Amino acid sequence: MEQRKIRSHISHQYDAELADLRSRVLAMGGQVEQQLADAVRAFSEHDAELAQLVVTNDYKINAQEVSIDEDCTQILVRRQPAAGDLRLLIAVIKTITDLERIGDEAERVGRMALHLAQTPHARRETTAPFADIEHLGEHVRRMLHDALDSFARLDVELAVGVAREDVKVDREYEGIMRQLITFMMEDPRSIPNALDVMWSARSLERIGDRSRNICEYVIYLVKGKDVRHTSLEHMEEEARSRKG
Amino acid sequence: MEQRKIRSHISHQYDAELADLRSRVLAMGGQVEQQLADAVRAFSEHDAELAQLVVTNDYKINAQEVSIDEDCTQILVRRQPAAGDLRLLIAVIKTITDLERIGDEAERVGRMALHLAQTPHARRETTAPFADIEHLGEHVRRMLHDALDSFARLDVELAVGVAREDVKVDREYEGIMRQLITFMMEDPRSIPNALDVMWSARSLERIGDRSRNICEYVIYLVKGKDVRHTSLEHMEEEARSRKG
Repeated sequence: MEQRKIRSHISHQYDAELADLRSRVLAMGGQVEQQLADAVRAFSEHDAELAQLVVTNDYKINAQEVSIDEDCTQILVRRQPAAGDLRLLIAVIKTITDLERIGDEAERVGRMALHLAQTPHARRETTAPFADIEHLGEHVRRMLHDALDSFARLDVELAVGVAREDVKVDREYEGIMRQLITFMMEDPRSIPNALDVMWSARSLERIGDRSRNICEYVIYLVKGKDVRHTSLEHMEEEARSRKG
Repeated sequence: MEQRKIRSHISHQYDAELADLRSRVLAMGGQVEQQLADAVRAFSEHDAELAQLVVTNDYKINAQEVSIDEDCTQILVRRQPAAGDLRLLIAVIKTITDLERIGDEAERVGRMALHLAQTPHARRETTAPFADIEHLGEHVRRMLHDALDSFARLDVELAVGVAREDVKVDREYEGIMRQLITFMMEDPRSIPNALDVMWSARSLERIGDRSRNICEYVIYLVKGKDVRHTSLEHMEEEARSRKG
């Protein structure tokens, strides 16, 4: 009897540790999402102060990655998890890597925003892409948000939905690129600024890719299937399948 | 007596599994290095056939990542490794992610090489950066090679050396960017080709970053210290320190 109580207590504590780990990932994700939203706003509103804040705050994201990573190692050593719990830990280790890199891309957008805000006439010279960048930024922020949501609710349907959005993001990105190339060829003086806009678009497009990565880990976590490097159709199939 | 024999046999098998895992990572690394070397050669020699080969072969790298990842999960479940062995597994999981992404960047260089090889006069229009890209490509290939070497020999000195090279690669990259911007401003018709060269330079620069990541995992593996997001000086200090 006593032993059963202890075991239940231990397992209760273990559950609490795993729940805590999940919520730490979500908290980190929330901060990364905020960094991204701020970077895009600083970019579109030419807000140097906000841009600087994004650049300054990146270290907080990095620190969280290192700290959650340590928690995972601790749990692996002490609990020696199997099956579903082990998949959770592996999914967490991979997810926080992508979250940290999304933070890096947001920081890059912040740097470009800072640069552009300090360049007079930058906005006037390349007006149209600014609105498109804002749109692309909002699109990938929503993707990241949904990716985190699918992780929180273990919702594979939503995860597949995010992967579907990534195709649209890629098309949006290609459109911005073509537009910027035209700008640059028509007015070579706009090249340095247009390149800043280009790097920002590239960073946002990569954030879409990484949000999709997170969704792949969710499918791995729920279905036990590795859907990386597979087609969208295959991913949809696995998401519909029963756990293998 | 019998039991001791069995235990020694089991541990022997376990050691063999870990050794096999390490050599699989190194084999994957070797293939990624080859992809990178081929991509750079296809780029500088305008070799469309070789470029196409690089693009086609990327799936092999992806398949290896998935397969080694599975091996790691299997070992985690069956062996429940602690301390050094667990650090090895975590380092492997992270290393193969970076190797796969280096493969992706090599593929991107391959795509740009293919594109440029199919564009008449591309070489004549932007001659100088082509030689610089070749130089940068060789530089990061050597970094990747040394990173894999430091993983194979658990050589933290060499790992720190790679991180030191990354600073030089970043400077080299900045130089190529400045040169390309000048080109583009002087001759706007060169913009589309110059952008292909620019994306290639960016991919190579990222390969340098990722090779540095691998070295950080080597230091983590040998010293038990997480040196990500720290300065080069701090990394050197940890590499000199005794295992913590």
